[in-house]
Amino acid sequence: MGISLKAYMDEMAAWISSQMLSFLPEEIPPTLYESMKYSLQAGGKRIRPILLLSTIEALGKPRELGLETASAIEMIHTYSLIHDDLPAMDNDDFRRGKPTNHKVFGEGIAILAGDALLTWAFYLISSQRRSSLSADIILQLIRELAIAAGPIGMVGGQVLDLEGERKQLTLDELERIHRHKTGDLIHYSVYAGAIIAGADDAQKAALSKYARNLGLAFQIQDDILDIVGNEESIGKPIGSDQRLGKSTYPALMGLEQAKMKVYSLVEEAKEALNVQGIEKERLAELADFFVNRQF
Amino acid sequence: MGISLKAYMDEMAAWISSQMLSFLPEEIPPTLYESMKYSLQAGGKRIRPILLLSTIEALGKPRELGLETASAIEMIHTYSLIHDDLPAMDNDDFRRGKPTNHKVFGEGIAILAGDALLTWAFYLISSQRRSSLSADIILQLIRELAIAAGPIGMVGGQVLDLEGERKQLTLDELERIHRHKTGDLIHYSVYAGAIIAGADDAQKAALSKYARNLGLAFQIQDDILDIVGNEESIGKPIGSDQRLGKSTYPALMGLEQAKMKVYSLVEEAKEALNVQGIEKERLAELADFFVNRQF
Repeated sequence: MGISLKAYMDEMAAWISSQMLSFLPEEIPPTLYESMKYSLQAGGKRIRPILLLSTIEALGKPRELGLETASAIEMIHTYSLIHDDLPAMDNDDFRRGKPTNHKVFGEGIAILAGDALLTWAFYLISSQRRSSLSADIILQLIRELAIAAGPIGMVGGQVLDLEGERKQLTLDELERIHRHKTGDLIHYSVYAGAIIAGADDAQKAALSKYARNLGLAFQIQDDILDIVGNEESIGKPIGSDQRLGKSTYPALMGLEQAKMKVYSLVEEAKEALNVQGIEKERLAELADFFVNRQF
Repeated sequence: MGISLKAYMDEMAAWISSQMLSFLPEEIPPTLYESMKYSLQAGGKRIRPILLLSTIEALGKPRELGLETASAIEMIHTYSLIHDDLPAMDNDDFRRGKPTNHKVFGEGIAILAGDALLTWAFYLISSQRRSSLSADIILQLIRELAIAAGPIGMVGGQVLDLEGERKQLTLDELERIHRHKTGDLIHYSVYAGAIIAGADDAQKAALSKYARNLGLAFQIQDDILDIVGNEESIGKPIGSDQRLGKSTYPALMGLEQAKMKVYSLVEEAKEALNVQGIEKERLAELADFFVNRQF
């Protein structure tokens, strides 16, 4: 018997959080450094790094192999939150119960802190030196990250989201937005773990399906929590989607149907893990965690 | 006798401009694609790509080797202009005589177009496949780009510039801002060419000095043109630095001294090129061009 999921997640999150900060070079101008650090420390659950490290472990390799890539992913996720919160985008004053980056440092610095985190993520991945990771593997990690995070991935999804804000969307349109806006980086987190651990094609396909389902389930659950969640634990006012007239899964398919959809996506995700060479317990637990979370 | 500098620069600029657009994938959402393309086509002189390609040729290698890296540099330069022009930064409505990106597409899309160009630059470099460029060399290009463009390079310089705006700066402080804000990417353009062409240490050191001098001369000349330039050919109102009370080289050292400084920096830059294996004529011409330019 291993440690509980909660202890496992807490331990990984603490490890990544401390290591990540140590990757920021000292020569960064102080204001910029403070702004980057503020958002890196703003207390996320480190879900993406945990998915990456758990995937590596599920394939029988040591989590240390994924340290730089996990940190890079969290930097990219953090930059995307800083830019999303700007007045020109979602215009949020609070995130996880704390003032957003631009409320503390001003819009100019917030934009630049995002740019800096995005750029430094690529430095981190490209500068890792491990005998078990060839230069070709590292290049593949970089290419896939740019695809997942850039104009045909996360940034593209954010543009679709901006444009769809005041429109009534179909379920297909909503799914396309979320597949890119949040799904692609979640998928990358698992897929990069598979690349790092040297997974074979069958394992990669299985993990890819697991990650796609998880990404979508995560987003639907997010929409559900906006309706039924606890304001304090999610760190932002609930019901804001409804007030803004946003298209959401519960709005388009009904609350009960949306809950069922999350359940079946997670079941399929776990099912996909039944492939030789994948230690599936922890990844399955993580998938369940996505359904039961209240934040 | 080769072709004239002007013909050489025009040909390279046209080549890079057309190739660069072909590197944008078709799946980019239309609005985002239009916004990225708008700024990529806004008519820069392509000075950084030209420096990179000329460096490769000066070392006796074919310019084709630098195509992806040159395009990536121009994407990074373009993203930095889009973000710099935003209301939270320099708040410019025009650039090179055309409305800035956010005036055409809105601030949200402009921020995201910048993010997308920055991310895609890393895709481009990491996805080049040339038998003469090893994966290790490509990783080095990526690392150096992140250093030159990120929190300890261009973005760091932009933060220092933002903070220095309403202060009286010393010459050292001003030089530090410009070394990072514009100098680091110009240096990278030349240095990346040296890496790609397989330059030896003496050649790298020589080209590095050439590039540092050029970067500083370029910036001082920029400040000079803001005072004595022709509004139409530089594409923005002249005298704006003075009106904003910005610290500039002419303001700190006098206009004639500033002109002398540009001259001596360029002479030193050309002098540095006297190293075995560097065909220095074109690079020397480019350095002279920096002094004589009126735009």
